[in-house]
Amino acid sequence: MSKKPVLVVGSTALDTVECPAGKVEDALGGSCFFFSTAASLMTPVRLVGVVGTDFPMDKIDFLKNRNVDLRGLQVKEGNTFRWGGRYHEDPNLRDTLFTELGVFEQFNPELPEHFRSTPLVFLGNIQPSLQLKVLEQINNPELVVLDTMNLWIDLTLDTLKEAVSRVDLIIVNDEEALQLTGKVNLLQAVVELFRMGPDKVIVKKGQHGAMLFDSQGRRFYAPAYPVMNVKDPTGAGDTFAGGFLGYLASHDMDDPATWRRAVIYGSVIASFAVEDFSMNRTRDLTMEEVECRVEELRDLVSF
Amino acid sequence: MSKKPVLVVGSTALDTVECPAGKVEDALGGSCFFFSTAASLMTPVRLVGVVGTDFPMDKIDFLKNRNVDLRGLQVKEGNTFRWGGRYHEDPNLRDTLFTELGVFEQFNPELPEHFRSTPLVFLGNIQPSLQLKVLEQINNPELVVLDTMNLWIDLTLDTLKEAVSRVDLIIVNDEEALQLTGKVNLLQAVVELFRMGPDKVIVKKGQHGAMLFDSQGRRFYAPAYPVMNVKDPTGAGDTFAGGFLGYLASHDMDDPATWRRAVIYGSVIASFAVEDFSMNRTRDLTMEEVECRVEELRDLVSF
Repeated sequence: MSKKPVLVVGSTALDTVECPAGKVEDALGGSCFFFSTAASLMTPVRLVGVVGTDFPMDKIDFLKNRNVDLRGLQVKEGNTFRWGGRYHEDPNLRDTLFTELGVFEQFNPELPEHFRSTPLVFLGNIQPSLQLKVLEQINNPELVVLDTMNLWIDLTLDTLKEAVSRVDLIIVNDEEALQLTGKVNLLQAVVELFRMGPDKVIVKKGQHGAMLFDSQGRRFYAPAYPVMNVKDPTGAGDTFAGGFLGYLASHDMDDPATWRRAVIYGSVIASFAVEDFSMNRTRDLTMEEVECRVEELRDLVSF
Repeated sequence: MSKKPVLVVGSTALDTVECPAGKVEDALGGSCFFFSTAASLMTPVRLVGVVGTDFPMDKIDFLKNRNVDLRGLQVKEGNTFRWGGRYHEDPNLRDTLFTELGVFEQFNPELPEHFRSTPLVFLGNIQPSLQLKVLEQINNPELVVLDTMNLWIDLTLDTLKEAVSRVDLIIVNDEEALQLTGKVNLLQAVVELFRMGPDKVIVKKGQHGAMLFDSQGRRFYAPAYPVMNVKDPTGAGDTFAGGFLGYLASHDMDDPATWRRAVIYGSVIASFAVEDFSMNRTRDLTMEEVECRVEELRDLVSF
């Protein structure tokens, strides 16, 4: 099977994270880097983002070594986007300590010429107007996936809906699905999301797994791999998306089974990501380790 | 396969339920009746509970017709336990409108002689001291399952722990598992529950399904069957328990696969229960309808 490249456009950040098990400062973060680390386990990645002149480039050497094309990473005068958060004993609860946008505030995604015909595209969680700008620059993609968050549903709903109408698949969590559609039942929300344009929907349910729906009524449920010690859930969603698209891009997308397995691979790789800060666990992850948990998940749901 | 009888001891009530889709008054409710309706689809049930002299006995004629032995149902001078609740648009949210214990306040479970050697026992969600009284009256059960709730964790923790230490399997929801053990991670809570005595644990996660754990480290995840229109979630947990124990009692309990399928059957029968008020959907449910959803669940998680 040929490995198709995947384009990712999103945030590139330095995260300061506190949790009961410890703390990291200025660790690699942002949707682009989490996504790329996961996807590049399986397929070449093309990354579009922006960092400041303060960005320690050696932090992303490992991405070059695993087939991530960084020629779309702009370096602008100023500071890199920095985010700080603190997780509680219950890792589902967190406080944002600070958000310093830096050069990310003026981010204007520009795709290098050789990125424009990338077959698979992931629009990471950035302003919907920027997601639209990316859509204008791509040619005949096979699959465009959009991620978003409650902030954009609150602030720029119309632009978000415009972007959603132009993609093939939307990834949301369960709360966002209800908020975006005004429904109280998840299945009803999914029907409404199909009306908005996409013909596939993934609903992430955190520790409860993820569901893939298509507009023909097919649905698939992937449980989360049960993790005993969740250290840092930051980036779990982007890691999931990276694993999902990385698997898709390297397998037969005409086979419905590929889509189910892609959700499982995304889920499994995300389960590793939350076991340590930043990309500490996923940057050295092997596909053998991934396969092992995939088989455990298969057993977990067999009856 | 022989069908073993199952003993259930719990509440027997008349429920008044309001939800966006309508309202019922004095509808059949309580853990005993929900459990029995589900379990008796597959195996004989022996019921121990108490109702007042006001109880309309014709409401439970259908249970006699499906092999529920009601000779343990006491009738006492006074009113039947009545509960009233109102569900919001989001059926996960409800307000309790009233709780009138009536004769249930003085409930003293007494097992008819021929109930005492029942091989499978379900201690429904009642005061732990009453669960202990039942344990004193049973002889050599093969399996004792205990259900409980946050109220007893708050009010009578020591007595609850005593009861838990004497059963084989505890059924809790995810919040109760954490509260009962003081943990913030579900897997850690399960390890602690095994320390308390049971060698099997079921954690119910509502719309996110249920997990079965055993003390040898085996675990099984059953997704909830996705329901588009949840009308009345009252009794879903007891219906799950009834389906689970009904399946176990009528299949080879020495086969680990039986336990997994039992969780699935419990989950599926509960998915029917929430589609209508009271036992309106489950009282006429057929095993053909159940099997159909079991196969849908099998497809839902296959990859």
